[in-house]
Amino acid sequence: MGKIVPRTLPGFMELLPNEQIRFNYFLDKIKKSYESFGFLPLDTPTIEHAEVLLAKTGGETEKQVYEFTKGDSHLVLRYDLTVPLAKYVSLYKSNLSFPFKRYQIGKVFRGERAQKGRFREFYQCDIDIIGENTLDIFYDAEVLSAINSTFNNIGFTDFIIKINNRKILKGIFEFLNINEKSTEILRIIDKKDKIGQEKIVEELSSIGILDDNINKLIDFMSFSGSNDEKIDLLNKMNISNKMFEEGVHELEKVINYIRMSEVPEESFIIDQTIARGLDYYTGTVYETFLNQHKEIGSICSGGRYDDLAECYTDAKLPGVGISIGLTRLFSQVNKLSTFDNLRQTTVDVVVIPLVEAKKACLSLTTFLRKNGINTDIMPFDSKKLKNKFKYVSKTKVKLALIIGEEELKTNKYTIKNLETGEQQSLSSEELVRSIKNCS
Amino acid sequence: MGKIVPRTLPGFMELLPNEQIRFNYFLDKIKKSYESFGFLPLDTPTIEHAEVLLAKTGGETEKQVYEFTKGDSHLVLRYDLTVPLAKYVSLYKSNLSFPFKRYQIGKVFRGERAQKGRFREFYQCDIDIIGENTLDIFYDAEVLSAINSTFNNIGFTDFIIKINNRKILKGIFEFLNINEKSTEILRIIDKKDKIGQEKIVEELSSIGILDDNINKLIDFMSFSGSNDEKIDLLNKMNISNKMFEEGVHELEKVINYIRMSEVPEESFIIDQTIARGLDYYTGTVYETFLNQHKEIGSICSGGRYDDLAECYTDAKLPGVGISIGLTRLFSQVNKLSTFDNLRQTTVDVVVIPLVEAKKACLSLTTFLRKNGINTDIMPFDSKKLKNKFKYVSKTKVKLALIIGEEELKTNKYTIKNLETGEQQSLSSEELVRSIKNCS
Repeated sequence: MGKIVPRTLPGFMELLPNEQIRFNYFLDKIKKSYESFGFLPLDTPTIEHAEVLLAKTGGETEKQVYEFTKGDSHLVLRYDLTVPLAKYVSLYKSNLSFPFKRYQIGKVFRGERAQKGRFREFYQCDIDIIGENTLDIFYDAEVLSAINSTFNNIGFTDFIIKINNRKILKGIFEFLNINEKSTEILRIIDKKDKIGQEKIVEELSSIGILDDNINKLIDFMSFSGSNDEKIDLLNKMNISNKMFEEGVHELEKVINYIRMSEVPEESFIIDQTIARGLDYYTGTVYETFLNQHKEIGSICSGGRYDDLAECYTDAKLPGVGISIGLTRLFSQVNKLSTFDNLRQTTVDVVVIPLVEAKKACLSLTTFLRKNGINTDIMPFDSKKLKNKFKYVSKTKVKLALIIGEEELKTNKYTIKNLETGEQQSLSSEELVRSIKNCS
Repeated sequence: MGKIVPRTLPGFMELLPNEQIRFNYFLDKIKKSYESFGFLPLDTPTIEHAEVLLAKTGGETEKQVYEFTKGDSHLVLRYDLTVPLAKYVSLYKSNLSFPFKRYQIGKVFRGERAQKGRFREFYQCDIDIIGENTLDIFYDAEVLSAINSTFNNIGFTDFIIKINNRKILKGIFEFLNINEKSTEILRIIDKKDKIGQEKIVEELSSIGILDDNINKLIDFMSFSGSNDEKIDLLNKMNISNKMFEEGVHELEKVINYIRMSEVPEESFIIDQTIARGLDYYTGTVYETFLNQHKEIGSICSGGRYDDLAECYTDAKLPGVGISIGLTRLFSQVNKLSTFDNLRQTTVDVVVIPLVEAKKACLSLTTFLRKNGINTDIMPFDSKKLKNKFKYVSKTKVKLALIIGEEELKTNKYTIKNLETGEQQSLSSEELVRSIKNCS
């Protein structure tokens, strides 16, 4: 029979078991952190009505969507977890308690051009807090606090969450009367670390911004110092614009709540230039960077939006949320030394039957499993002990239990640490304690 | 702006948070049980090349597959987790250790006609053990033992795993020279509990089976008694056919291993009439039933196959596996009284700030979260305490922490059990212990 070449689509992550276990470690830490903050789990369908999911989309996203028909139905694969949330909240509003805090961890799909670090199928790990009519500004701090905990729990120690308020930028543009050029200006400002101040001036000038305004923008961009110093500089700009003032005031409040939540000062910083999706976010915005690996870009972003579900309902549902793109993050940080010591197996111990002591082996295996120990057992074959150890060490399992004639007589089992070579002879109860301590 | 009606596709499960939490409890128990048996996690893509995934398919399945093109690629959504496993093992064979034990829990997609209890998107929770060239019959018992543990861990107490060996049926059909009618015969036998013996005889006769053979088949179908008695009856049938003898012998061996693994005798029984997918399975087969709810049908099925990946590789990869269709199972057992006491929230405690004691509230909240307690916090607003309690009880959270002026002075916090009405005044350290005991 002719064979089909087995292959996986480009842009789709598929891991070997030891890497999958590391990936799942990330997933698990994120889930537990989100739950510790009181976020409730959701799991919406992968496939939705095209009309529903594309209600608001356009441009790039729409081109990337996986779209198809089945029977009479025009369907799409979800391309994020926010639009499904908007649908969900609109649909089940009367059954939910507000503020509604939910997390969702799941795969989303975007058929973009495959390139390094870009995935067509990837995990998003989202938290959002949705209010009914209003949502206290406190929740903007709660989201940042949750993300700070999450990255700490994963094991990142040197990261920074940048925070800003879109109203500050909007207010300045209004005040300077350059509102209609805001998208272009933001695109230029965003390049400040790459192209330098001189180039920025040149580019702002080339889109018709007047010198006076360019100076003001350059001034604004250059604010540096502590969070309090930046707030102070913003307040001293003398921009008499309601939107701007509101933005600064909100930012102050959020910073205050973040401090009350005991997020360490070195974990967050005001960056008055970040804007995120201009059309979508309306207040607080966040971006997160690894200080030692800024080249990776933001590893977690989000913000406040005025109305989650205006396409579906007249109810006003303001919210604030943030998302970790885990597949990309994992592909870039998996190899960092920070994660050298992560377990590469879920198996705590492997039972190696030395003689035909099947009953004793299986009984001990069952005993260990019932006591919460992940236990594998090697085949009952006559392969040499050396070969069996070779197999076990390939699987990265740390402990092996050897069961032979001696063990059967004494009910003491030899446990060997394959990393240190250390051996001990223990009773079944002692084994449970010893293995639990080791894993 | 015109609104789009928010709606979810029929046949796609979408749960409210309290039900999602119950669903996740099932998922989590299954995952932990599978890991305790040494199965390693896998996560293959949702989308695959059509040519790869449909290499072997035909008939009903092919019609149900979600198929589409993106750019030049002909793509499909996975409709099970077995074909992706075959692809995976063929592709990464040299990196894997055999026997390769993997579990995969994920959504699969079948666009079948939507009807009650049928889903187009559903979770499969699979375990498989794949050998290289050979796979010891012991692993057929390991799979049954894993399933027994899994259902016990979920909380099912009254279930039975039916076990058979396809070679027994195949051998009888060969011996009676009715092999070419085996599919039809099995379809008739499968109805034995529904239509009764008389109808069975009639239907067998109508497809041309001779009376003598019908009598032998009826005899065979009627074997009852303990597992040992059934083995005995099979051995006494005097069917001199190699396939039959091999089947009975394998079945005996598997039963023996199951007993050594200390699976209780009431959890499994030989049912010499079950066959499962005739083309696919070649040895041991399993089906699982809830004794009190047989109407649900088999809740977990699988078996032994000779060659996992013959479409992709010349390597011989025999395997044995089993699958729980969790979405359907959950939809049918969620309301059983067995699960009345399952938690309906992931939140352990809600902090209710009584006065403007923001700093104290947030500091305590952070303390609890850091100590592994899932803590939510109510908005800092002036709503009446009664309304706040109403909100909390709607969310099904059991414990509320009240923080007012008194608490600030004494550093003792009032914790209220909303189910019993009981109140206690505790220090922050005492709170951690008390809340952990309660959840």
